[in-house]
Amino acid sequence: MAEDWQAPEALAAFAELDHDRVARRGYPEGIYCEGKTHDQVAAIAAAVGQRGDVTLFTRATPAHAKAIQTELPDALYDEDARLVAWPPQPPAPTGGPVVVVAAGTSDLAVAREALLTATYLGRDCELVMDVGIAGLHRMLGKLELLRRARAIVVVAGMDGALPGVVAGLVSAPVIAVPTSVGYGAAFQGIAPLLTMLNSCAPGVAVVNIDNGYGGGHLAAQIAAPA
Amino acid sequence: MAEDWQAPEALAAFAELDHDRVARRGYPEGIYCEGKTHDQVAAIAAAVGQRGDVTLFTRATPAHAKAIQTELPDALYDEDARLVAWPPQPPAPTGGPVVVVAAGTSDLAVAREALLTATYLGRDCELVMDVGIAGLHRMLGKLELLRRARAIVVVAGMDGALPGVVAGLVSAPVIAVPTSVGYGAAFQGIAPLLTMLNSCAPGVAVVNIDNGYGGGHLAAQIAAPA
Amino acid sequence: MAEDWQAPEALAAFAELDHDRVARRGYPEGIYCEGKTHDQVAAIAAAVGQRGDVTLFTRATPAHAKAIQTELPDALYDEDARLVAWPPQPPAPTGGPVVVVAAGTSDLAVAREALLTATYLGRDCELVMDVGIAGLHRMLGKLELLRRARAIVVVAGMDGALPGVVAGLVSAPVIAVPTSVGYGAAFQGIAPLLTMLNSCAPGVAVVNIDNGYGGGHLAAQIAAPA
Amino acid sequence: MAEDWQAPEALAAFAELDHDRVARRGYPEGIYCEGKTHDQVAAIAAAVGQRGDVTLFTRATPAHAKAIQTELPDALYDEDARLVAWPPQPPAPTGGPVVVVAAGTSDLAVAREALLTATYLGRDCELVMDVGIAGLHRMLGKLELLRRARAIVVVAGMDGALPGVVAGLVSAPVIAVPTSVGYGAAFQGIAPLLTMLNSCAPGVAVVNIDNGYGGGHLAAQIAAPA
Amino acid sequence: MAEDWQAPEALAAFAELDHDRVARRGYPEGIYCEGKTHDQVAAIAAAVGQRGDVTLFTRATPAHAKAIQTELPDALYDEDARLVAWPPQPPAPTGGPVVVVAAGTSDLAVAREALLTATYLGRDCELVMDVGIAGLHRMLGKLELLRRARAIVVVAGMDGALPGVVAGLVSAPVIAVPTSVGYGAAFQGIAPLLTMLNSCAPGVAVVNIDNGYGGGHLAAQIAAPA
Amino acid sequence: MAEDWQAPEALAAFAELDHDRVARRGYPEGIYCEGKTHDQVAAIAAAVGQRGDVTLFTRATPAHAKAIQTELPDALYDEDARLVAWPPQPPAPTGGPVVVVAAGTSDLAVAREALLTATYLGRDCELVMDVGIAGLHRMLGKLELLRRARAIVVVAGMDGALPGVVAGLVSAPVIAVPTSVGYGAAFQGIAPLLTMLNSCAPGVAVVNIDNGYGGGHLAAQIAAPA
Amino acid sequence: MAEDWQAPEALAAFAELDHDRVARRGYPEGIYCEGKTHDQVAAIAAAVGQRGDVTLFTRATPAHAKAIQTELPDALYDEDARLVAWPPQPPAPTGGPVVVVAAGTSDLAVAREALLTATYLGRDCELVMDVGIAGLHRMLGKLELLRRARAIVVVAGMDGALPGVVAGLVSAPVIAVPTSVGYGAAFQGIAPLLTMLNSCAPGVAVVNIDNGYGGGHLAAQIAAPA
Amino acid sequence: MAEDWQAPEALAAFAELDHDRVARRGYPEGIYCEGKTHDQVAAIAAAVGQRGDVTLFTRATPAHAKAIQTELPDALYDEDARLVAWPPQPPAPTGGPVVVVAAGTSDLAVAREALLTATYLGRDCELVMDVGIAGLHRMLGKLELLRRARAIVVVAGMDGALPGVVAGLVSAPVIAVPTSVGYGAAFQGIAPLLTMLNSCAPGVAVVNIDNGYGGGHLAAQIAAPA
Repeated sequence: MAEDWQAPEALAAFAELDHDRVARRGYPEGIYCEGKTHDQVAAIAAAVGQRGDVTLFTRATPAHAKAIQTELPDALYDEDARLVAWPPQPPAPTGGPVVVVAAGTSDLAVAREALLTATYLGRDCELVMDVGIAGLHRMLGKLELLRRARAIVVVAGMDGALPGVVAGLVSAPVIAVPTSVGYGAAFQGIAPLLTMLNSCAPGVAVVNIDNGYGGGHLAAQIAAPA
Repeated sequence: MAEDWQAPEALAAFAELDHDRVARRGYPEGIYCEGKTHDQVAAIAAAVGQRGDVTLFTRATPAHAKAIQTELPDALYDEDARLVAWPPQPPAPTGGPVVVVAAGTSDLAVAREALLTATYLGRDCELVMDVGIAGLHRMLGKLELLRRARAIVVVAGMDGALPGVVAGLVSAPVIAVPTSVGYGAAFQGIAPLLTMLNSCAPGVAVVNIDNGYGGGHLAAQIAAPA
Repeated sequence: MAEDWQAPEALAAFAELDHDRVARRGYPEGIYCEGKTHDQVAAIAAAVGQRGDVTLFTRATPAHAKAIQTELPDALYDEDARLVAWPPQPPAPTGGPVVVVAAGTSDLAVAREALLTATYLGRDCELVMDVGIAGLHRMLGKLELLRRARAIVVVAGMDGALPGVVAGLVSAPVIAVPTSVGYGAAFQGIAPLLTMLNSCAPGVAVVNIDNGYGGGHLAAQIAAPA
Repeated sequence: MAEDWQAPEALAAFAELDHDRVARRGYPEGIYCEGKTHDQVAAIAAAVGQRGDVTLFTRATPAHAKAIQTELPDALYDEDARLVAWPPQPPAPTGGPVVVVAAGTSDLAVAREALLTATYLGRDCELVMDVGIAGLHRMLGKLELLRRARAIVVVAGMDGALPGVVAGLVSAPVIAVPTSVGYGAAFQGIAPLLTMLNSCAPGVAVVNIDNGYGGGHLAAQIAAPA
Repeated sequence: MAEDWQAPEALAAFAELDHDRVARRGYPEGIYCEGKTHDQVAAIAAAVGQRGDVTLFTRATPAHAKAIQTELPDALYDEDARLVAWPPQPPAPTGGPVVVVAAGTSDLAVAREALLTATYLGRDCELVMDVGIAGLHRMLGKLELLRRARAIVVVAGMDGALPGVVAGLVSAPVIAVPTSVGYGAAFQGIAPLLTMLNSCAPGVAVVNIDNGYGGGHLAAQIAAPA
Repeated sequence: MAEDWQAPEALAAFAELDHDRVARRGYPEGIYCEGKTHDQVAAIAAAVGQRGDVTLFTRATPAHAKAIQTELPDALYDEDARLVAWPPQPPAPTGGPVVVVAAGTSDLAVAREALLTATYLGRDCELVMDVGIAGLHRMLGKLELLRRARAIVVVAGMDGALPGVVAGLVSAPVIAVPTSVGYGAAFQGIAPLLTMLNSCAPGVAVVNIDNGYGGGHLAAQIAAPA
Repeated sequence: MAEDWQAPEALAAFAELDHDRVARRGYPEGIYCEGKTHDQVAAIAAAVGQRGDVTLFTRATPAHAKAIQTELPDALYDEDARLVAWPPQPPAPTGGPVVVVAAGTSDLAVAREALLTATYLGRDCELVMDVGIAGLHRMLGKLELLRRARAIVVVAGMDGALPGVVAGLVSAPVIAVPTSVGYGAAFQGIAPLLTMLNSCAPGVAVVNIDNGYGGGHLAAQIAAPA
Repeated sequence: MAEDWQAPEALAAFAELDHDRVARRGYPEGIYCEGKTHDQVAAIAAAVGQRGDVTLFTRATPAHAKAIQTELPDALYDEDARLVAWPPQPPAPTGGPVVVVAAGTSDLAVAREALLTATYLGRDCELVMDVGIAGLHRMLGKLELLRRARAIVVVAGMDGALPGVVAGLVSAPVIAVPTSVGYGAAFQGIAPLLTMLNSCAPGVAVVNIDNGYGGGHLAAQIAAPA
């Protein structure tokens, strides 16, 4: 029914445009492994190796990592963060500093995914751990570091109150990452997600539950060189 | 089908038991006005006047208050708290002090309902206002007062983070009252309710959304003379 | 019970610290009017006038605005955005440009709140309207403008798909603001909120439903001079 | 109590009616395997073999498939789509072409269930993969194919934005199938389901989460010969 | 930062493409009035009058209609369906017949919006009313009519069971439109929405709650001439 | 497409069947007024008057009642229960006794709708009021009455605990009707609905929120003469 | 504080009362096994054996059953229904007939739990299987049987529409049991639960998801001899 | 950017303050084990051993317990309560008595966590089991004990009605702990949580689902010596 329509040049141009954009941003591509078979992941890794582009594989199980390393033997696998990075060396840092804060030990895996993502996107990153709201003084001890950051990622489960507290103390934007840690009525992360969305202090924006990759990516964009 | 069963003394005894309990506790009875007609409320007020019991009417509109005052002309009506109290003089305070904290100006009506309830149940109460988590220093200025309390009621909407922060700084139990104040994803109080249930700091329990009466009542029970 | 504890200097120092921070950021304070009486808002306005600080009053009804203007007669009121700003002249812009995108005409009020907020926080802002996903070509016509932005706020209801599309085309961070516009299963903004949280394209963070103030504030922070 | 009521002919006639309808439509019957034991599934397969009707068994585990193949040894099992078809050869295609679009690799299993269903219901089908909204240009490259379709099935998880984008570019009806792929706040498919229901572009209808069978069936009905 | 990128011809071509598509489909454009001011709606109506395109204004209040009729005096307003159509005469019908079924009297407004939409998109339509599942025999009396349809729209609130029953009796695709009619646990249409999504009979797809426009539009697309 | 199918006698028989059933049960028909215009309700009332069937109009506003009484001047309107009954005299009671229990004064309207419904369906009914769980002894005083009932309807909002308590004390079936009375987290009746569904005591079944008509109808069926 | 209160006779009398009730009803006691250890279940079984009371153990895993049979070797275990009954012979049936309807094969386990429960509570029961709404004629073939029932239990997952259809055809009360069978948006039984609560036909009450025991118990109570 | 700010004494003082508070309260610290690796838990245990502070490890699996006991060989592990306590001897009891009530056998693990927590925080505790609302007389037999308590923890799943019943009979505060026990529509504890929040009797506050630690902690605080 649409057989007479013809505008291949227009489409080709548009497609090129997107390609061009990736090249200029220099951001590694992200491959979401969950729900992909090992064969599918290996095929993507092979294609990545041929193109030579910097790439992050997120939500990678050890078996995913093994499949990737068959094609890209030097790829780095961080099991805590469930992240595979290739090539294994992060780029030299540019832009402003990024600080990633984990409210508790249980939030560490997600925080580490954010940290590594921002690092491989070219930022200078630092991790601050276990500064939950119940021990406010521990966070205050890190205040100077927090105030130097150009972007802050705060990873928290349970009551999710930490990002709002941090945002009240600094002028940098705070990216809040809710985690699925906690008792029943945390509802796999819905409770901290809602807390963060309703933060009394302006300066907080939220990404998806357990989405450390998204938090780190956004922080890297915010702290990019102007 | 149950026509031959007979145990009136047992039931009568049980009924007395309950009556006896109210008398001994000395707590005023609470009448929930919402959903009651003005005639129904007036009839209850008339019965209260005849028995002479101390009584609180909660969620009372001005029209409810007027209907009550037809029967109990000296009843006190606090429009902010939507509370009618009779007789109008609260009892002389006993037990430990109760502090009611309102996170923001918008939480004042609910906080006031808690304050008056605990006062009419016989406690010495104090109200602390506008000490939200975004201005942490204001709450810290009240720390000495908070630490003297035997029970603390914290009323907060939006992110509902304040009760957890307070609980981390004091040893008294904190009763958290979520309010239905805030932007869309506060969902009429669900967000602060969840935050409070998921508080990282132990020592926080929660009552229903906007239920200042329940919060004040519980605080009065906690701070009752041993 | 805590009567012997004494550390006033520590607390005073901490309180000062916060004051100091506000001064150095130069960001106007935000007063949330919803749930406040006209008298309360007027009292705050009077205090603002005495201190001389730049201030934004959000979610202000015309009656709120009138109460504020009794104390601050030259305060600007934008009825669409439900925002009162004082003093009425925004500061001279610094930092990078901010672009605010409204998916449809119905999202205009929230978009305008974001625009004015970022403007009064000192950024150079531009508004792009009615570029919803159903008419993709309209957004593509604005691509050059979007790519110049240091931060982009995208305001959308219904399916909330626009922020993800924008994020796929630019390298600047995208702040997504869901609105409560739409048919039944948009659930007063939950549907676009979830869409935005689940954006396939990295580079999107979300603020609360209809929270144009929060979106504009965060954009201004991101685009602040380094 | 209803013992004197008698209208067997009426009921028998009505029952025949339904039988008649199935015969005339020529659509294979669908057997939902989830929650059925292997013995139950085998018994159904035996009955199918005796009647000789074309049949699809959906949500079939490998063990279900094995039980079916005991009775129908030549039945085809597609493990990705969890579908058993018997007889194994699809009918010769009639009606208009159907295109099935998978937003990402993780949506492939559900897309394949839709594809096979429509194929076994007698349509000429084509599968388009990995054309998510974050890489819009890839979908645009398939535009000619999409515009030739009489019905389009779009399978997507996460933000579920793709069906709305497709519907804005074609005149054929779009059947959207949400999948349970994604981070926490995708809520096992609720997020893309809501996005699809709230699609800004008219021309989108939605079936249940992960219900590739339903999507393919409806597409086959739409594209049936008039 | 993107200042050197230049591909205006590509974008222009793409934009044209969309324009071209609308022209060829011959479908009227839909303007969603809810959330738009009367001035905004009037401005759109003026533009429509200049272009001369067939247009539907949905969710139009009487005041919206009046604003439109200032610019397009002969525009037709159907208050039940909250629809304004211009020009007032629907096109001559082409394609297959469309039947719209309303489960009850309370679903009539939404059903009528579907009916008018499909009519103005060029289909021959018929309305069947009050055939709810509790009176199954009434629907059976309409069976012949239903079986002649090329597409069926079923509008139902409460238990939303009717579309599944209809789909079990016909071979045409059924578009289900849930309505927000019913007791408390119908949750403003969520209950029938879920029922419809979970329909046991294949052949049902669902549009948004109360979205008669979407249901009628999709039916018109399905029943379009091949 | 189904033009050659012919079975009119079958359908006619089936339709008769339903008619026959209504006649033999002797239950009045129920007309749900919410969402119907006054004209629609009046038209139905006129038809009812011509047929002479006993009829209940539920959820009738005073304006609905007036429209009905134009056609059926002697129809009874109970404003509390929002019920119109015609003819106004209930039938002579048959079957077992029905008891309707209201947990509090605020549940009275819904309880009254249940009471009148069961009465007009021909049962001998009694209303027990204000026997909430917080005053258990009041309910125990009614135990003899409750144990004589053939079916019990318990209407309760807030915590909805009363039906489970009653069911633990009697052998008759308990029909629980949740009401939308209560503080925020009662969620317009969802909280008592869930409580009732999760009742620890067997012997409780639940109808929709505020659906006194449904509760009374079911009780009348249960207590019907065998 | 309550040390002087003494009313042991009253309490003892009340406790007896409950004991007395169980004896007179003759209903077996139900023990919910889920969440109990094997030792706990065995200890209860031993106590049951000593008292000699008829008892049903619900939600019993095979390991639970084995633990019970150590103490009560002749106890009957129905693995499909996850039910242990002791003594193994059901009582001779009294009262009216009960019919249990399963909408599909996948609902069989829950239907069987209902069937056995009603049987062990002393009713004459019959099971009708696989009469879902998509094959309405199959249910109509059972109409005579359904109309003889004094109580009907309808077990259904997915769209949950069957109970409403049945209720529209019979005069007996219908107890609806939703099951957790179905695609994603059935939400583990919430969809059929809501459908059943919103049934257009009066005469339907609902018990908890997958609660065949509750459904069978209630049916046995309804059909008890008067 | 904040490099010139210096207030180390203030922060140090504040930090000390918190330390000081813990020391004076004498409450053991709580370590939440869920989501922590065995190595992380062991490291914390080693630190605890060096400081010598009383500590509770909650939500500890047997493997967690083993890791802790490598560092603290005499630590007590209660597998039912999933709690590790060190040192193993609880302190001598002070303050008022605490009673923990479990509604059913399935609630025992959570009740035991509450019991042990309050015991290790220094209270005299007693456990009352299996007094659910369906067997009210069993609870009444414990009334004298309940009335002696200074604080009562009530642990209940399913309908969650017990705390409200208890609160109606005593004057002590009731801390309600919902558990995730029950059929489908208990929704992993949401149903009892809502019931408890909506309790008709004042005097009930709620902690998170399955959070026995929180319930016990709060009870210990309430019953602390004045």
